[in-house]
Amino acid sequence: MRQNDVLNKKSKSEKTRIRILEKAAQEASISGIAALTLGGLAQALDMSKSGIYAHFGSMENLQVAVVDFISDQFHKQVSSPVLMVDRGREQLVEFMRLWLSWSTHPERPGGCQIIAASFDYDALDGPVRDHLANQIETWHRQMREFMRVVIDNDSSLKINADEACALAVGIYTKQHIEHFLLKQDDAPQRALKHWVEYLNRAT
Amino acid sequence: MRQNDVLNKKSKSEKTRIRILEKAAQEASISGIAALTLGGLAQALDMSKSGIYAHFGSMENLQVAVVDFISDQFHKQVSSPVLMVDRGREQLVEFMRLWLSWSTHPERPGGCQIIAASFDYDALDGPVRDHLANQIETWHRQMREFMRVVIDNDSSLKINADEACALAVGIYTKQHIEHFLLKQDDAPQRALKHWVEYLNRAT
Repeated sequence: MRQNDVLNKKSKSEKTRIRILEKAAQEASISGIAALTLGGLAQALDMSKSGIYAHFGSMENLQVAVVDFISDQFHKQVSSPVLMVDRGREQLVEFMRLWLSWSTHPERPGGCQIIAASFDYDALDGPVRDHLANQIETWHRQMREFMRVVIDNDSSLKINADEACALAVGIYTKQHIEHFLLKQDDAPQRALKHWVEYLNRAT
Repeated sequence: MRQNDVLNKKSKSEKTRIRILEKAAQEASISGIAALTLGGLAQALDMSKSGIYAHFGSMENLQVAVVDFISDQFHKQVSSPVLMVDRGREQLVEFMRLWLSWSTHPERPGGCQIIAASFDYDALDGPVRDHLANQIETWHRQMREFMRVVIDNDSSLKINADEACALAVGIYTKQHIEHFLLKQDDAPQRALKHWVEYLNRAT
């Protein structure tokens, strides 16, 4: 094979891999990462099971790759853009705005796959649980550090980083339940308002 | 049959029904209410599938009954005892203490079945989802009302009821994830400390 053909083949394989991960992430948003099956994915993608298997080698590998794929998306859609905003209160508002947009993005019709998976995997063992736990632990630490730096740099913010993290998690979790389970369309708007009011009271 | 025999038969049937619900609630704490199966329960209870079926008529009826059974337990173990405490800050501390004990009670080895189910049922339709949504909506309203009454009656508490509810949900959710997924044994203690510090800062 000529070099171009090798590159094309690699790029085609990479494109298929991404197409599988995109579909798997979407399905996981509805039914959960733990409920993914080769058969279900094959049907949704109009591919053979062995075609999917060839890219990942096992269902667990695919699930680990889905967790990474979602983490990368979170980085692109939330963690990275929030750093583009000037520090201080506006950055905290933007953080919640981006996090809520993440929850309601059309790419994830049933909301964040990671928060749902954290309840599905809490009684399981194995590489998917370990990888998920690792990602969540890292993210909790990063959120705590983000809050601390913003608060330390804006003396008008009279809030505590641990409290702000827990409140953000609570507002987000309530919003997920209100939006997806209780079907309250205005839940994301109320959640953002709630966060802004907290920041206003605290200054 | 004599009247005593009729009563005994009824009471035996009621006892079996409760034994099924207790086991189902315990299994649901680990794998989720949505994952309950007649076969799994029959094996765990050393009963026949038809024996279980005779008490509930369908898996959905059993799942609805499990949601009610857990709600009753929550009422007995959390909502009711918290009203025995004098109003004010101590009642808010006791609320969180009882709620965290609920999460770590040996009856539920994988934590609260309802918070887990709210992520499992958010993309499903049917009577179990409807019943669960109804219970959660009621409970959110009751928690909001409880906070409001306590805060209104204690002028030293400079907190907002919506904020206190969202923070309580956030502290509880983080604790569930840290305790069951991340296996941090001290998560419940840290959660209570966190809540007490919030109440202290807010006065």
